[in-house]
Amino acid sequence: MNYPTGVHPIARKVLDRDPRGVARACRFVDDRLDGYVDLMKDLFPHTGKAWIVGVTGNPGAGKSTLTDRLVELWRKEGRRVGVVAVDPTSPFSGGAILGDRIRMQRHFEDPDVFIRSLATRGALGGLSRSAVDVVRVLDAWGADVVIVETVGVGQDELEITRSAHSTLVVVAPGLGDDIQAAKAGIMEIADVFAVNKADREGADATVRDLELMIALGRKILEPPPSTKADCHSMAAAPVRRDVAGHEADGSWTTPICRCVATHNDGVDGVGKWLEEHRRWASQSSAGMKRHGQRVRDQFETEMRDALVEAALRALRPQIDAAVADVSARKADPYSACEALVEAFRRS
Amino acid sequence: MNYPTGVHPIARKVLDRDPRGVARACRFVDDRLDGYVDLMKDLFPHTGKAWIVGVTGNPGAGKSTLTDRLVELWRKEGRRVGVVAVDPTSPFSGGAILGDRIRMQRHFEDPDVFIRSLATRGALGGLSRSAVDVVRVLDAWGADVVIVETVGVGQDELEITRSAHSTLVVVAPGLGDDIQAAKAGIMEIADVFAVNKADREGADATVRDLELMIALGRKILEPPPSTKADCHSMAAAPVRRDVAGHEADGSWTTPICRCVATHNDGVDGVGKWLEEHRRWASQSSAGMKRHGQRVRDQFETEMRDALVEAALRALRPQIDAAVADVSARKADPYSACEALVEAFRRS
Repeated sequence: MNYPTGVHPIARKVLDRDPRGVARACRFVDDRLDGYVDLMKDLFPHTGKAWIVGVTGNPGAGKSTLTDRLVELWRKEGRRVGVVAVDPTSPFSGGAILGDRIRMQRHFEDPDVFIRSLATRGALGGLSRSAVDVVRVLDAWGADVVIVETVGVGQDELEITRSAHSTLVVVAPGLGDDIQAAKAGIMEIADVFAVNKADREGADATVRDLELMIALGRKILEPPPSTKADCHSMAAAPVRRDVAGHEADGSWTTPICRCVATHNDGVDGVGKWLEEHRRWASQSSAGMKRHGQRVRDQFETEMRDALVEAALRALRPQIDAAVADVSARKADPYSACEALVEAFRRS
Repeated sequence: MNYPTGVHPIARKVLDRDPRGVARACRFVDDRLDGYVDLMKDLFPHTGKAWIVGVTGNPGAGKSTLTDRLVELWRKEGRRVGVVAVDPTSPFSGGAILGDRIRMQRHFEDPDVFIRSLATRGALGGLSRSAVDVVRVLDAWGADVVIVETVGVGQDELEITRSAHSTLVVVAPGLGDDIQAAKAGIMEIADVFAVNKADREGADATVRDLELMIALGRKILEPPPSTKADCHSMAAAPVRRDVAGHEADGSWTTPICRCVATHNDGVDGVGKWLEEHRRWASQSSAGMKRHGQRVRDQFETEMRDALVEAALRALRPQIDAAVADVSARKADPYSACEALVEAFRRS
């Protein structure tokens, strides 16, 4: 490929699908090295093609195994797959704490799979910002799908998941308390539920809990015929599984899929429901409206970060002086903040 | 009391300990009504006296019951107590979703207890900012202790808990997965652990899990004699309970207290360990250093919020235009953010 002069050298490598270039770009944006904004400016026009799939859930639910199976499924269909693992407990990101990057053994040799792990950052919004940038790098690299794996439903994870087009929440039987704990957050972000380890005791109860959660807010419909087969293959117990995606009024009701990721059982069904959601999100007016809102939220978050970064750069000594004054109670933090905002505007 | 002319009328009422004035001030800062910054500027010089105690843990751990018992304990000692409940699942804040405020039945008639619940906000940092402001209102009102009750260990909760002087993490037997899930966050914020419902099966295992978590990072010492009695009263099973607070090197090792809050058993021990931590935090150099760092972090968070609020006020039309351009892919978000930051500095 030929690029206009001035394109960042790392951006060229990403667009040429050089794996080392992609790795370097990821490190560049994760560490926010000088020039990463220029790199991203060059990459951005080449993004927007990838389907971004969030995979979240508590540790022990089997997110990573299911992610691995989805990579396998989508590779069989010839798609190029990126994985961004933001879960410090995930085997994908085993070394994330040390800042390094691990490819899963069985996908290591596959040039059409790229896996990048991100360390958990202390900085407010730092992790979600890095994740968004790394997803864009993989999008520009040419990924058809980018899976973003996160743990739990903290603020950072919610931020990250909001940038996904379709979000899969993985739960496992016997984690009822976790569901309870995370209910509000989970209901907000779940586009598809996977009840993993569905061959275990308690799976029916977990499905019922989820059904109840969903029913509390939405109507229940029959699932489309295309996916009934998959649901059936997992329907070991006679549980009502009549929850569906598309609603008559154009809204989306979160479907519940049973699977056993370790046996690769039911994973096709999860994939199909995710596709179904993708179709809904890209074609229905409700889906498009939601997407528009997410683009707006995302941009506002990026703007906040850019503003704070610029202010911290411009005002470091003044901030230190203000902290000293507030600590010594020579100034109140409200007046000190006003003064700093004014100083930034005059800087 | 007499105040200089110009003191905000609501601030006067707070300083005069008018309960309605306190309620109004809380609503004022929670809703960020016009003039709330002026109100806070007037109140701030009267803050800094309260001991701020964070109480956190998963739903079902019994945080609210234990909080209620601690209120009882501290009221018996004649202290004025404020409670800020940021847990939407808590009975303290049952109506928080609707934005109203509930006092617990049994403390309702007590003029020296003030309970305020906060709704969970969508805005990044919004909740923690409100919590910090409401804590200051209660501090200015004359609270000797302000308990801040939060649920879980999300980003917002971590932010809030970092503003506390001493943080109690409440866990209950059988929530092992939750501990696992939240390990990193919990270890960072826990100054004292309470294993509540310690008469239940699994309490020993929970204590051992916590001991292991603590031992992984720190040395284990004998507890000070003053608290051994309380620990003993709860030591139904022969579990090693030799975890202590103050370390020889000046650091703090999180103690583990067993209690049954519903029976008011072991709550004294929790209170004593919290006091012990308060002493450590205010007297040891490690404690003071940590406090200084927290004041700094807190101020930087407030500055970020002030900056973003000012920018959103100044740039609303430009931001809307930028969102439209980015959505239509006419601009990349990086360039758009740079332009907005520049526009703010020139505004």
